[in-house]
Amino acid sequence: MNAVLRAESVSAWEVERGAGIQRLRRTTRALPDLGPHDVRVRLHAASLNARDLDIASSGEGRIVPASDGAGVIEAIGRDVTRWRIGDRVAAAFYPRWIDGAPTADATTGSLGGMVDGVLAEAIVAHEDAVFAIPAHLDFIEAATLPCAALTAWHALFETTPLRPGDTVVLLGTGGVSMWALALANAAGLRTIVTTSDEAKRAFVGTLADATINYRTHPDWSEEVLRLTNGRGADLVVEVGGERTLGQSIASVRVGGTVAMVGGASGGFGGWIEPFALIGGMKRLAGVLVGSRAMAERLVAFVAQRGLRPLVDRVFAFDDAPAAFAHLASGRHLGKVVVRIA
Amino acid sequence: MNAVLRAESVSAWEVERGAGIQRLRRTTRALPDLGPHDVRVRLHAASLNARDLDIASSGEGRIVPASDGAGVIEAIGRDVTRWRIGDRVAAAFYPRWIDGAPTADATTGSLGGMVDGVLAEAIVAHEDAVFAIPAHLDFIEAATLPCAALTAWHALFETTPLRPGDTVVLLGTGGVSMWALALANAAGLRTIVTTSDEAKRAFVGTLADATINYRTHPDWSEEVLRLTNGRGADLVVEVGGERTLGQSIASVRVGGTVAMVGGASGGFGGWIEPFALIGGMKRLAGVLVGSRAMAERLVAFVAQRGLRPLVDRVFAFDDAPAAFAHLASGRHLGKVVVRIA
Amino acid sequence: MNAVLRAESVSAWEVERGAGIQRLRRTTRALPDLGPHDVRVRLHAASLNARDLDIASSGEGRIVPASDGAGVIEAIGRDVTRWRIGDRVAAAFYPRWIDGAPTADATTGSLGGMVDGVLAEAIVAHEDAVFAIPAHLDFIEAATLPCAALTAWHALFETTPLRPGDTVVLLGTGGVSMWALALANAAGLRTIVTTSDEAKRAFVGTLADATINYRTHPDWSEEVLRLTNGRGADLVVEVGGERTLGQSIASVRVGGTVAMVGGASGGFGGWIEPFALIGGMKRLAGVLVGSRAMAERLVAFVAQRGLRPLVDRVFAFDDAPAAFAHLASGRHLGKVVVRIA
Amino acid sequence: MNAVLRAESVSAWEVERGAGIQRLRRTTRALPDLGPHDVRVRLHAASLNARDLDIASSGEGRIVPASDGAGVIEAIGRDVTRWRIGDRVAAAFYPRWIDGAPTADATTGSLGGMVDGVLAEAIVAHEDAVFAIPAHLDFIEAATLPCAALTAWHALFETTPLRPGDTVVLLGTGGVSMWALALANAAGLRTIVTTSDEAKRAFVGTLADATINYRTHPDWSEEVLRLTNGRGADLVVEVGGERTLGQSIASVRVGGTVAMVGGASGGFGGWIEPFALIGGMKRLAGVLVGSRAMAERLVAFVAQRGLRPLVDRVFAFDDAPAAFAHLASGRHLGKVVVRIA
Repeated sequence: MNAVLRAESVSAWEVERGAGIQRLRRTTRALPDLGPHDVRVRLHAASLNARDLDIASSGEGRIVPASDGAGVIEAIGRDVTRWRIGDRVAAAFYPRWIDGAPTADATTGSLGGMVDGVLAEAIVAHEDAVFAIPAHLDFIEAATLPCAALTAWHALFETTPLRPGDTVVLLGTGGVSMWALALANAAGLRTIVTTSDEAKRAFVGTLADATINYRTHPDWSEEVLRLTNGRGADLVVEVGGERTLGQSIASVRVGGTVAMVGGASGGFGGWIEPFALIGGMKRLAGVLVGSRAMAERLVAFVAQRGLRPLVDRVFAFDDAPAAFAHLASGRHLGKVVVRIA
Repeated sequence: MNAVLRAESVSAWEVERGAGIQRLRRTTRALPDLGPHDVRVRLHAASLNARDLDIASSGEGRIVPASDGAGVIEAIGRDVTRWRIGDRVAAAFYPRWIDGAPTADATTGSLGGMVDGVLAEAIVAHEDAVFAIPAHLDFIEAATLPCAALTAWHALFETTPLRPGDTVVLLGTGGVSMWALALANAAGLRTIVTTSDEAKRAFVGTLADATINYRTHPDWSEEVLRLTNGRGADLVVEVGGERTLGQSIASVRVGGTVAMVGGASGGFGGWIEPFALIGGMKRLAGVLVGSRAMAERLVAFVAQRGLRPLVDRVFAFDDAPAAFAHLASGRHLGKVVVRIA
Repeated sequence: MNAVLRAESVSAWEVERGAGIQRLRRTTRALPDLGPHDVRVRLHAASLNARDLDIASSGEGRIVPASDGAGVIEAIGRDVTRWRIGDRVAAAFYPRWIDGAPTADATTGSLGGMVDGVLAEAIVAHEDAVFAIPAHLDFIEAATLPCAALTAWHALFETTPLRPGDTVVLLGTGGVSMWALALANAAGLRTIVTTSDEAKRAFVGTLADATINYRTHPDWSEEVLRLTNGRGADLVVEVGGERTLGQSIASVRVGGTVAMVGGASGGFGGWIEPFALIGGMKRLAGVLVGSRAMAERLVAFVAQRGLRPLVDRVFAFDDAPAAFAHLASGRHLGKVVVRIA
Repeated sequence: MNAVLRAESVSAWEVERGAGIQRLRRTTRALPDLGPHDVRVRLHAASLNARDLDIASSGEGRIVPASDGAGVIEAIGRDVTRWRIGDRVAAAFYPRWIDGAPTADATTGSLGGMVDGVLAEAIVAHEDAVFAIPAHLDFIEAATLPCAALTAWHALFETTPLRPGDTVVLLGTGGVSMWALALANAAGLRTIVTTSDEAKRAFVGTLADATINYRTHPDWSEEVLRLTNGRGADLVVEVGGERTLGQSIASVRVGGTVAMVGGASGGFGGWIEPFALIGGMKRLAGVLVGSRAMAERLVAFVAQRGLRPLVDRVFAFDDAPAAFAHLASGRHLGKVVVRIA
C-alpha cells in the first residue's frame, strides 16, 4: 500500500490564464501525498464546458482546466471510510460544498477554476469531495455529471419548488439545457425548448413537449404565453446569451422564477429592467453548479430512470486542444468529452 | 335563461347516517335557486370511496352520499366569470378551501360528509367550488379526481418536498394508492407497493419499481430497507389499516415522512410509539384531500401526461346500492364508479 | 335593515388618471347595492402612498385614489358570516387575493389602482376582501396596514425564509421601510437602515441596530459587509430609488435575497447586471403588497407586540389635496394619513 | 508546538453504561494525537441534561458523559484553518452533522452517547466539530448551548416555518423549555408555558405571554384553545412526559405541528392516536438537537439579542456526582452546570 500512497507524477494539460484555450499545453504534475482522508482518483474521462474557455481567457496563473471528471479510486488515505479502491466516482465541482445552503467558504476552490481541474491522468481529493457515479453510465457519460448535469438539476429542482406538470423553458441545445431536458421530462415537467437551428429543432422536437424558433420568433416569450394559455412558464433555465434575459422574464408566470445559470454556460449579455420583475412578483435566482448532496440526489435520479447524456463527440487525451476547438466552434449538439485512459 | 335559473327537482340517493350504506334509498331533492356566483352542474358520474361507507355508518341526519362527481355546467348565476355553460367540471371536495394552508374554516363543509354530496342528477355550487377536468378523461374517469386522486396528489407533492428519484412506499391497491402509483411514476419517483394478494401483486408489479407481499413479509419495513440499501424510503403514503403504521414509520429514512391519509380511505388501527419518530427525526403528517388550487395542479399534471385512473367497474345510477356493496366487499382493484347520465 | 342595504351616495375624492394628483377633486359616488356576501364599510381614515401619486400621473379614466383605509362595518349582506355590524376592519389591497401564491387573477383589481379606492366616506366590499384591525390601533394608525405595513411584512416574512438573528437592510425612512424596521426589530432580526439625512438618521439610530449614511458612503454595500464581518446581509428590502439596486445586490450574502418592493414605493432607477446575481447565487424577488391571509398574519403580530406605525401628519378629509402635496414633498418621516370621519 | 500536539492525559469522569449515574467515577484519559484538521479544546464548563441520566442507565461500555461543553482552543493541527489558539468554542453535539438535512451517517457519534463526552479537562475534536460561542456569555452560560439551546432552536425555527406572532406552547420549566421561552420571546412569537408548580409558574409568568397549570387543568389543551380564540397553537415543543402528547396534539391548530424533542429531555409516556393527527392535518416531527450550521445560527441570534440561559446551580468539577444528583431530583429551575476549570 505504501507505494500507491507516495506522491507520483501524472501527465496533464495546462493553460496560462488570460492566454486563451489555444495556448493549452501538455505538462507533468506531481500529485501531493495522500492525507489520512484523501483519495486518489485515476481519471478516465473529462467533459468540457463553456466555462473552461472563459477561465482560459481571463485571470492569471497556470491551471489544469476542466471540472468534470470521472474515474476510479486507486488509493485511499489511512482514515478514509466512504470509499474502497475500485469505486467509480466523479469529482465534486466545489470540493468544500458538501450540503446545505451555499456559503462564501463552501463555494471557494472550484475545480479547474480556483484549483487544478481534471484534465489529468489522476487527481488527489478529500474523500468528501467525490461522489459515486451511476452503474449504467460509462466514464464518458458520467464525466458530464459534475458540472453540466448538476447545474441543470440545481436549476430545476433546488431553486424553487416545482411540482409535476409545471412548465419549464430551456434555452438552446447546450450541455446544461440538454441535461435539463432529460431531467425535466423524467420528472413529469412540461418542457419548452428554444432554438434557432431548424436541424437541432427537429431533433429536440422529438424530446420536448414544444419547441420555439427564436429567430423566427424574436419575441419568443409570446410563444411561451401562447403555449401556456396566457399564464406563462413556472421556470426558465436561463443559460445566458445575447438579450435572452428580458424574454425569459416575460415568459414566466406571476410568481414564476428565472434561474440564471453560471458555471457551465457562457456569458450573459444585456441588463434587467427592475419593473419587469416587480409587476408579476417574479424572481431571478443565480445558480452555480451545486453541492455534493445535490450531486448525490442527481445521481440517484439518473440511476433510477436510466438517463443518459447526449454526447456529441469524444476526443483522445492527446487531442484535448481539438476538443476545446470543437467546443468553441458551437457546432456541437450535446457534450464534448475527452477520453483520458 | 330564466327557466334554468329557477330551482328544480332532481333525483338523488340518500342515506340515513348511522344506519349504514345498505339503507341507501332513492329520493328527490329540490335544488336551491342559483345565487349570482353559483353554477348548476349536471352530473354524469360519481366515484365511490371507503369514506362514504364510514359516513353512512355514523353520525346522524340524512345526506346525499359521495364527494366525487364530474359533469357539465348547465346554468350559471348572474355574476359568474370563471365558467360558461357546457364547461366540463368536477366538484371540489372542500367547497371553501380554495388555496393556501388548511384552516378550520376552509375544511368545513365537505361534500357527502357535512353537506349533500354528488350521488344526484345535479348540484348547485359556488363558481369557486368546482374545477375543470382534463380533456382526455371521460366523466367516469374524471369522477375519480376530487377525492382519491387529489388525496394521492396532496400526500405525494404537497406534504413534504420530494425530489425526482426519491422513493415512496404505497400501501395496497385501493383508489388512493393506485392513483399515487400513477402520479409517482410519472413524476420520476421510485415506487414500492405493498400488497397481500399475489394476483394483484402480479398486476401492480408491472407498474411499480418493486412490490412487497406483506403477508409473507409481516415486518415489511425490512424489505423497504433492503430495497433502499438500508437508507429507508423518503415518504410512505399510509392509507390506514391494521398495524401498518409502525411498519410505515420504520420504513422511512432519517428525516423521512409518513403521510397519513384521511378522506378516501378506511380506518386506522393501532397506535404510534413516540420514540419511533424521535430517533430518526421522522415526521407524521395528517392529510385530508386538498384545496381547489391543489386540484388544479393535479389536473394540469394528469392532462400533461395523459394519466388515467384504474376503474374497476361502472354501475348504473339505479344500481348505486350494488356499487356500494361491491366497494364494501373489497374485491375491487381500482375505482368503483356510478354512471349518472 | 332594509334601509342600510339600499344604495346610497357618499362623498369621495377623485382623480383623472394622467392629470396628476394636483387635479384631485371632490365628487359624489353612488354605492352599489349590497350583494348577499358584501359588507359596507364606513371609513374613518385613509393612508397615502407614493403609489397614489404614480397612479394619478399615468393611465386613464377617473378613479377614487388610495388603497389604505380603515373603518367600521355598518351594513352586511344577507349571507355574510365573517362579520357583524360594528366590526373594525381595513380593506384588502387586492380584493381577490385571499390566500396562497400570487396569480394573475388574484392580483387584478387593486384598490385605488384598478378599481375605486378608499378616499371616500364609505365603500362596499365582498366580505372576504376586508380584514380585522388590531384593537390597540386607532383608525389613523390602522389605515397604514393594508399597503405599507403589508408590503413590509411580505418582503420580510413571506419572500424567503429568514431566521431570528438574520440581518436585514432597509433603505431610507419611507412608510414601508419604517414599518419594516418595527416588524424586523420585534421579530429578532438585526436591522441596518440607510439614510442620507442626518436628522432622520439620528432618529432611526435609536431604533435600528445600525445606520449608514449613503451620501457619505455612496458605496454603502461596503459598510454592510463591514458590519457583517464580510458576510453580507440576508435580505435587503429594496424600495426603489436611483442607483440603489446595484448596492443592494452587493450587500447581500452568498445565497441572499433582495426583495424589490412595489405597491407603496416610488420608482426604480437603473438596471441590474446579471453576473452580480450569479456569482453569489443571489436572488431578486418582486414583491407586491400581499394577500388577505398575509394581512391577517401581519395583524396578529402587530397586535401581539403592540406595534404602532410612525405617523407623520394627519390631514382632514377636506384637506386631502394638502395631504398629497405633503407626501409629494418628501419631507415626511412616517405615514401621511387623512382622517375621514 | 510539538509539545502541545503530543497526546497527553486528562482527568475526566466516567460512567459504566447500565449501572446508572450514581456509579460515576473519576478516571484519566489519554487524549489522541492531533490530526492535521483536529483541535484540542481545554474545557471550562459542562452542562448536564436528562439525557445523560438515561445514557448512564442503559446500554453498555464505559463512557465520559455529557454533551454540552465550552472552553478554549489550546492546540490546533497542521492544516486547521477555521480556528486559532485562544478561540472560545463549544463542541458540536453531532460531530459529523455539519449542515443540511439529517442523515443516518451525520447523526452517528453523538458526544457523551456514542463517543466520549465533555465531562473532562480537555477533548480533541475535528475543526469542523466545534463552533464559536457568543462573546457576552461566560463558559458556564455557553455550556448550555450545544444540546439544550440547540434543541430548542431546532424545534422552534428549523422544524416548520413559523412567522412572527405565531403561538408556541412550551411544556414545563426544564432546560429546553426555558431556552425555547427566551428564544421565542426574542423572535416575536407568542408564548404559552405549562407548569404544575405555582412557584415556578409565578416566575415563568413574568416571561411568558400566558401560563397554564396543568394540574388544575389536566385537559390543558382546552386552555390553549381558549387563549387562542379556539384556533389552537401553531407549534408545541413537546419535551416528553406522562400523557402530555395527546394534549399537545389537541392544542395545535389545523395544520399545526408538534415538535417531539429528543436529546436533552427525558422519556415519553403514552401513545398517539392516528386520527388525532389526520382530522386536523396536524404534524408530528421528531427533533434531535441539530447540526453545526443550526448551532451557528443559534449563536448569531443569542449574540444579537444578548440572550442568557437560566442557570440553576453551578457545581465544581470534583462535585460532578452531586450535580447529577441535583439534576435527577427535578428540583432545578434552569440548567445544572459543572465548572471544570
